[in-house]
This record gives sequence, C-alpha cells and structure tokens, in this order.
Amino acid sequence: MARAPEEEHPQKAIGWAARDKSGILSPFRFSRRATGDQDVTFKVLYCGICQTDLHYAKNDWGTSIYPIVPGHEITGIVTEVGSKVQKFKPGDKVGVGCLVGSCRSCDNCCNDLENYCPKMILTYSSTYYDGTITYGGYSDIMVVEEQFAIQIPENIPLECAAPLLCAGITVYSPMKYYGLDKPGMHVGVNGLGGLGHIAVKFAKAFGMKVTVLSTSVNKKDEAIGRLGADSFLVSREPDQMRAAIGTMDGIIDTVSAFHALSPLISLLKTNGKLVTVGLPDKPLELAIFSLILGRKMVGGSAMGGLKETQEMIDFAAKHGVKPEIEVIPIDYVNTATDRILKSDVRYRFVIDIGNTLKA
Amino acid sequence: MARAPEEEHPQKAIGWAARDKSGILSPFRFSRRATGDQDVTFKVLYCGICQTDLHYAKNDWGTSIYPIVPGHEITGIVTEVGSKVQKFKPGDKVGVGCLVGSCRSCDNCCNDLENYCPKMILTYSSTYYDGTITYGGYSDIMVVEEQFAIQIPENIPLECAAPLLCAGITVYSPMKYYGLDKPGMHVGVNGLGGLGHIAVKFAKAFGMKVTVLSTSVNKKDEAIGRLGADSFLVSREPDQMRAAIGTMDGIIDTVSAFHALSPLISLLKTNGKLVTVGLPDKPLELAIFSLILGRKMVGGSAMGGLKETQEMIDFAAKHGVKPEIEVIPIDYVNTATDRILKSDVRYRFVIDIGNTLKA
Repeated sequence: MARAPEEEHPQKAIGWAARDKSGILSPFRFSRRATGDQDVTFKVLYCGICQTDLHYAKNDWGTSIYPIVPGHEITGIVTEVGSKVQKFKPGDKVGVGCLVGSCRSCDNCCNDLENYCPKMILTYSSTYYDGTITYGGYSDIMVVEEQFAIQIPENIPLECAAPLLCAGITVYSPMKYYGLDKPGMHVGVNGLGGLGHIAVKFAKAFGMKVTVLSTSVNKKDEAIGRLGADSFLVSREPDQMRAAIGTMDGIIDTVSAFHALSPLISLLKTNGKLVTVGLPDKPLELAIFSLILGRKMVGGSAMGGLKETQEMIDFAAKHGVKPEIEVIPIDYVNTATDRILKSDVRYRFVIDIGNTLKA
Repeated sequence: MARAPEEEHPQKAIGWAARDKSGILSPFRFSRRATGDQDVTFKVLYCGICQTDLHYAKNDWGTSIYPIVPGHEITGIVTEVGSKVQKFKPGDKVGVGCLVGSCRSCDNCCNDLENYCPKMILTYSSTYYDGTITYGGYSDIMVVEEQFAIQIPENIPLECAAPLLCAGITVYSPMKYYGLDKPGMHVGVNGLGGLGHIAVKFAKAFGMKVTVLSTSVNKKDEAIGRLGADSFLVSREPDQMRAAIGTMDGIIDTVSAFHALSPLISLLKTNGKLVTVGLPDKPLELAIFSLILGRKMVGGSAMGGLKETQEMIDFAAKHGVKPEIEVIPIDYVNTATDRILKSDVRYRFVIDIGNTLKA
C-alpha cells in the first residue's frame, strides 16, 4: 500500500493543497525525496498562480490526482545539491516551471522539446519516475533534477522571475518558433491577462509594433501607458476591427474563452499566423476560406522546453521584461483564485512563500 | 451601354457558357481583344474541368457574372505575340491557369504572390483592366498578357499539362511553402480526387513517404498500385486511424466536404502541419487542445504565383509528374460535370478543345 504523503519521503514539507473538486486550498503536510546525485533542493520563496492551477484544483480537465499542491511558477534559493550537479550550488537563485521530468529519449526530448514529450512529468498532480505523485510550488521546499531547474539571473527579482517560468515561456516560445520576433513586424495580442501582458512586453523587447485586442476598452490606457503597447483594438467594435484588416504579421491569442477566430484571421496579412496559447474547452469554428485566401495559419504552442526556458529568462533579464505582479501571502490564496475567476488581477498573483508559509 | 460579348473585341471566339445558376453549359459566341504589345494569343487545345468551374457555373459562391465561360487549366499553341513579348513565339506551347491579371504593385505582387493580390483578375467571371468580363478556357482562343502565360516544357503532353495549372499548383505550392517537400518525410493526402491524386505524385517525386486517407477502401488498390502511394488509411476506421497517431509530418487536406479536423491533427507528429486546400462551405470545428499539445498548425493555401507555377510545371516535366486524365469532347461537358458531382472521375476531365470545339 502506498505510504501517506507525509511519510513516503525523508524530507518534511508543508504546502497548501486542494483536497477535492471544490478547489479550496488549505495547509497540507507531505514530504520530498532526499537530494539525489543529480538533484537540486531549494527553499521556495515565490510561486505564481497560473490559471492552470485553478483548473487542476477543480479537476476541470478530469486528470487531477488529489490532494493537489499546485504551483509551477516557482523560484527560490538552492540549499543542497547532489554530487553530480554541475550548474548549481547552495545559495544560487533557481526556478522550476511546468515540468520536472520527461523520457529523455523520444524525438521531442532529443530536440529540447521536453514540453511535447508524451511521457513528460508535470510539476504537480503527475506520477513521478518513482511512482509517487508530484507536488508543486505552493510549498516550502522543492527537490528537482538539475536538468529541470532554471538558473535565474541576478538582475531579475525572484518574485518577477516566477511567472516567466510558465506564462513567460508560453508566449515567448511561439513568438520564436513562428517567427514573430522580428523588429518592425506588427503583432497583435488578444487578451490582456497573465499571458497577454507578458506577450506585450516580449513583443516590445523584440522591437515589434504591438496592438492589444480586448473585448472591453477598459484596459486601453493601461495597455498603452503601462505596458507599452502601440495601439489598442476593441474586438467587439466592428469599425475598429474593419480598419485593421490585413495589417498584422501575427497574433498571439491568449483567450481561453470560446471566441470567434475569423475576425482575428482577417486582421492578418498574407502569410500571417494566428497562434493560440489559451485553452478553450470546446472547439472553435474555423472558416477554411479565411485561411486559404492569404495562406494564413492557425498554430498552437504549449509551454517551452528547458533550454528555451533558460534562454527566455536570460532574455527577459537582459531586456528588462518583467511581469506586473501582485504579491500576496499564502493565506490569501483562496481569495486570489476567486479574484482570478473575476479577471480581477493585474496581471499575476505571486505568493510570497518565503515570508508567509510557515510550518 | 456595354457592348454584346460578340462585339466588344475584334477577335471572334466561340466557347461554351453557363447562362444561369442551372450551370448548364451551351455554345456561346463572344470575342477576344486584339493582341496587345505584351499579349500572347493562342489556340486553345485542352482545358481541364476544375470543381471551381462547377461552383462558378452554379453561382455557389454568389460572385458569378453570367454568361460564364469556365476553364482555368488551359493549354494550347501560340498563334500571335505582341511586339514586346520576349518568352513566346508562334508555335510555342503555352498555358494559362487561374489568373490573368493583378495589380503588380502590392506586397503580394512584389513577392511573386499574385495569387494573393487583392485585385487579382481571375481567368473567368472577373472584371479585366478594361472593364470587360474575362472568359475562360472552354473556348477556342485566348489572349493573355505574357506575364500570366506559362511556358509548357516539350516533354509533357498538353493534355496532361492542363490540370497542373490549377490542381497541380494548388498542391505543389503549399508543399513548398510549408516545407512538406523533404525526402524521407511522411505526408498524408486526405481525399483522392483531382487535387489529391496529383498531391500523391508530387509527394512521391519529392521523395516522401505518402499515405492516402479516404473515407472508403475502394481507392486503396489504385492509390498504391497506380499512383504510387506507400500506404492507405480508411479515415472512418478508428483502429486504422489510432495506429497512425503521431506518424505524419504533414497532411495535404483536399477535402471540400464538411469533415472533422481533430482526427487528422492527431496523425501529426510534433510540429506537424495540416494544410487545407479544399473549400468547405461552412466552418470546420477546431479543437485548440489538439493543436497546442504538439505545436501543430492548420494552414491554408490557394493556387500559386506565376513564378512558382512555372517552377512547378518544369519540375513536373522533369520528374514525370502527370495527372491521370479522361479526355472528353466539349459536347460531353454537362455529362462530365454530373459525373464530377458523383465523384465518378479518375481523376480529372480534360476537354479536347482543339478537336471538338468547332465554330
């Protein structure tokens, strides 16, 4: 019989966990494995709250394994390293994103695309190599193989680095892969939430013209004044949309709600690319005519590989790309998730684990 | 008041035209412009019947201008050239595809993508520079600007070259653009009609492994034995489809009927590309999850530019890529269109204009 979470490993840990599909989080005692030869153990200081955490906590996708300690935007300070670890030493800044394991032998893994490995191990609610369940960053310590640990550059605060490890790489990776990273290009960002606001910042750092699309005009001043977007389109205003037809090289579509693709596709130039990174839970309608008349495409992208995640955070540090965050104590986390569901956050909650999660 | 089609130009012409949305074709007297400085005039010998011809004849897309002389897969022999024409002389083999004009100044035109020019002039049922209506290749003579005329290589019969000018370029162009042209790749071809059967032949000429997908097993022997495909999948057989999950670099989807995209997307490897060249008349369902989990894309493509069309036909001649055709007399054309609607053609009708269309 499987041992209790508190007993299965030697290192004591505490976190906040969801016990059932209510998704309500509360303190939870569990354990972490001993630091193996290739492992990095670190004290968690910050963890971002990703919309995915909410989906998992409530078992929206039917794959949750309770209890769930969410959190895959994790930063902290290394406390111990295994004998074969090369890139980290105690005291180093470190981060963990969505993945803590993969098969290491498939085509994806061999091409630095662990994020598409069919056997990838997610940071929480996933089955680890040893058969135990993974627990995420709403917790005081983490143990992770060096290969899945990210070095956090000195000049980016750990609380700002955290959301980059999921939200950041999720928008950075498709911009690189789909070639939407060239100075002078015009890119649209649909939806201005956790993902969208970072997409705006990366796009500006790449030297592109950025237009934010949103269903409401409320975010216009902030999109332009605070985030640096060049222009703003209210996607429900047909006149505004019509005036922008055929003007964009690409669009990063971060919207997870059901929405129409054709109006977005119409904004693209010939060869334009609509890249979806949100996860609508039912199929969207795709008018094939709209793709064919202009050789356009709709592509998807999920997270990023470890090598590219390191590249992303180095780029962010170099170019001053920082998410806009609201730092909260751990006991605010249930209120925070309620606020996320009401889109009442600008633009990412980050839990101050180091100062507020006590054993 | 506009002059009658028979009177508006100096060169007498005869063709077969649809007069109304019945789509029934019958003999039609009209006229062609005099051979201008940059024009090539030719005697039409062959013209393929494209599904688009049927849509236009019946005004399925609401853009038809009657009377319509269809036909945009046209080959023949040059009879006269203008003083500034450089590439053609009387007696040369020549072809015309979907386009006879474009603006020549937009980004698309400047990048050899006249096929995406917003002001492109279609070979029939379109308004020419001079305000007259264009008439297609179900006719005895054509006059076309040199820029829109294709040189037909000596070693490809004119009746075989004809379908390449629309069906051929429509599948060749996306294979090149989306990078589905590399030896060793595995590509699927969905639908084995006019477009699909040529896609199989180009794919084999590129050195790829080709799997044909069809709703029925009836075409299996022919796909493999006659067209050279490597394997065949009955897309309605879940077991066959499941066994092929994640095996293809790309799929050329030639199906115009409403169909499910997700089963096709599931066949793709990471980074796989589903390229649609058919024209379903209502939107298809696109499950965003299926794209995101594997960084896949759905792209469109329409026809090809003039430079690439020339490249395509030179490639076809060099590598022996020839469509499978059934040559018919012009007075069989209404029967042929009925047969096309019943998918009763393997795989393209080509009208023997030279021998059967008499004034």
